[in-house]
Amino acid sequence: VADVRLISLTTDFGLSDSYVGAMRGVISSIAPGVPLVDITHKIAPQDVRSAAFVLWAALPYFPAASVHLVVVDPGVGTGRRALASETSWGVLVGPDNGVFSYVWAAAPARSTVELSNPAYWRSTVSSTFHGRDIFAPVAAHLAAGVSLAALGSPLSAPVRLPAPHLSATESRLRGEILHIDHFGNAITSIGRLVWDGELLYLDPAFGTIQPRVVNPARLVVRIGERDVGSIRRTYGDVPPGELCALVGSEGLLEIAINQGGGAPALGIDVGDPVDVVVA
Amino acid sequence: VADVRLISLTTDFGLSDSYVGAMRGVISSIAPGVPLVDITHKIAPQDVRSAAFVLWAALPYFPAASVHLVVVDPGVGTGRRALASETSWGVLVGPDNGVFSYVWAAAPARSTVELSNPAYWRSTVSSTFHGRDIFAPVAAHLAAGVSLAALGSPLSAPVRLPAPHLSATESRLRGEILHIDHFGNAITSIGRLVWDGELLYLDPAFGTIQPRVVNPARLVVRIGERDVGSIRRTYGDVPPGELCALVGSEGLLEIAINQGGGAPALGIDVGDPVDVVVA
Amino acid sequence: VADVRLISLTTDFGLSDSYVGAMRGVISSIAPGVPLVDITHKIAPQDVRSAAFVLWAALPYFPAASVHLVVVDPGVGTGRRALASETSWGVLVGPDNGVFSYVWAAAPARSTVELSNPAYWRSTVSSTFHGRDIFAPVAAHLAAGVSLAALGSPLSAPVRLPAPHLSATESRLRGEILHIDHFGNAITSIGRLVWDGELLYLDPAFGTIQPRVVNPARLVVRIGERDVGSIRRTYGDVPPGELCALVGSEGLLEIAINQGGGAPALGIDVGDPVDVVVA
Repeated sequence: VADVRLISLTTDFGLSDSYVGAMRGVISSIAPGVPLVDITHKIAPQDVRSAAFVLWAALPYFPAASVHLVVVDPGVGTGRRALASETSWGVLVGPDNGVFSYVWAAAPARSTVELSNPAYWRSTVSSTFHGRDIFAPVAAHLAAGVSLAALGSPLSAPVRLPAPHLSATESRLRGEILHIDHFGNAITSIGRLVWDGELLYLDPAFGTIQPRVVNPARLVVRIGERDVGSIRRTYGDVPPGELCALVGSEGLLEIAINQGGGAPALGIDVGDPVDVVVA
Repeated sequence: VADVRLISLTTDFGLSDSYVGAMRGVISSIAPGVPLVDITHKIAPQDVRSAAFVLWAALPYFPAASVHLVVVDPGVGTGRRALASETSWGVLVGPDNGVFSYVWAAAPARSTVELSNPAYWRSTVSSTFHGRDIFAPVAAHLAAGVSLAALGSPLSAPVRLPAPHLSATESRLRGEILHIDHFGNAITSIGRLVWDGELLYLDPAFGTIQPRVVNPARLVVRIGERDVGSIRRTYGDVPPGELCALVGSEGLLEIAINQGGGAPALGIDVGDPVDVVVA
Repeated sequence: VADVRLISLTTDFGLSDSYVGAMRGVISSIAPGVPLVDITHKIAPQDVRSAAFVLWAALPYFPAASVHLVVVDPGVGTGRRALASETSWGVLVGPDNGVFSYVWAAAPARSTVELSNPAYWRSTVSSTFHGRDIFAPVAAHLAAGVSLAALGSPLSAPVRLPAPHLSATESRLRGEILHIDHFGNAITSIGRLVWDGELLYLDPAFGTIQPRVVNPARLVVRIGERDVGSIRRTYGDVPPGELCALVGSEGLLEIAINQGGGAPALGIDVGDPVDVVVA
């Protein structure tokens, strides 16, 4: 089964309606037996930026030949374009609304086309559900071996989201909260941070500041008026219920409560600024 | 892999217990490698009518050879019968409580049997979990090639739900809210509506009124005391936060808020009457 | 497809982040096409005991050759060990924190190893996400045919949770609430109860009391000050909205409300004592 080409699914459809099922049915009709692998269907409704982050965090772990189908699509039925894009992280399929911005920053597009060839769509296209009528059939045809070029003409200047905030002075790194996860951990744009003995290397995942080496023992993390202390190795380095800063699983600075309720209980929200300062 | 016969799953079990896992395990034990495709497990507990709607909306998009396993079963362990039914939308397996009513209205049963042959059940049958002990093994055996006739004797007069309300006078169509989706869109029984230039064709999906042609420019949608205006093409045709009526992805009239919180915030609920009147 | 070896997944990651997707990607990269079967990702955060119960209830229904990947891991990144364990219910992979205790009580470990061979891990291991970096790759290699012995050295004295409370006198059985399900049914540690005509056999699933025969007509179930009456066959044996005691699908005594809101509305919680007394 070594050349099975899977399709991952990422949407904001939730899991209570017929919508995800209908997409899975469409794909299974065109490409029977293709593995369908959910990333998540619980992106907050129409939250393109949140989807962009989740894709950036999940896609590196998939086989490079995967097809990644994404439907977070507030502009469905309007003039927004639809695209497919080939990268070293797989082929991306979804609306041209910036949802692939963070993926492209790490895995630049080799080729991107506008989905303009209706031969690979369902024969009837609704004005409110392109996930089922355009994106799902296109993803299925790609998994079944259709080439990117067959789907449409090259698309230039796709929509891109602004990079997450990340800035540096001699004595301070400033980022922002990018995502709050199921455990209440607040993940920031400060990274990627790599431990090497006593030193941290900052190799920016986003933005354009220069890589640098910092000494974690001399650093203090601050969010708003709150002092979170120095950077730890894992949640268990502080007692249960206590706040800590650590390097998360994607190398981004993360603010967590060991076995606790997390960021929402503290009033921490996406977009809040976070500082790392030399103590 | 062209003759892979998938099993779809629709239940009200939620996703936090062992129940869905146990069913998947049973199926995988009988039919190893059969694709399992979730439609949803978040039907409201015991809400047979909601499941009937979701199946009607999802099943047309699946391969015709699929097996559709449904467990929304308030009468489990009582005298209610169990059935399998062959249709042009696939083979249906579940309790005889009306959950397939709307599917049968669109894809009439070619043959329906009562599940009476315990040879295709688990050897021990609990009184509270026929999903695991009867429906899952029967679905797995069907996917593996067992014939409908082997499962039991013909079942006549299966339970049917009343059709959703849909009535018409010269100057008014009246329907009801059938379903409120994850985005808060309120889906009505008024449809199927098909756009053709400036005209809408009403081809009733439910009920027995005659098809007719109407002019959307002359129509106004009303729910309770609220005037929703004329029928639009897509969410983006009104500003964010504004209420609009449009033809949804199944051809049913839908009341939505563009990028907004939707029906629950407005006090709109399933069963509420909706009118389309000539302005 | 008879020798397909599936991997089941059980975590407390929820379904809204990239975490489950990243694990699925890692597995699909190592073992393309291996069936991934979710048990649940909605274990309450860090609730090892709840996961232990769900695994006990789900695993018997899976093919014996399955690999069961479990990540409920409050001690990630600390000194807690990681293990793989071969049983008659499949190969278990997860943290050494007691999460397999109830499975081992029913299906004793034939062989258990500590995961100490990094050859079967991702090349970089984070301190906060061993699910992705150790457990998922190990499960994938096991499904692809790697032997348990290759993964590490024998692990002795794995962590075990205390057995659920179950005690008996001549006139009373006492257990505790183990789990409250999606429907609000409160599942107790009293069982397994097996009906045989008018008699109930108690064959303890947990703890060490002796099997015995009891007469359900003479029994009354009590929770706190509440008298639940005798033991029924199924939910439908009482009117909708009424409380009843019955033998659940795992043979455990269960307290339910027919088609009702269930235990949380009654103030019943996990750990509460439940009595069965001779009337």
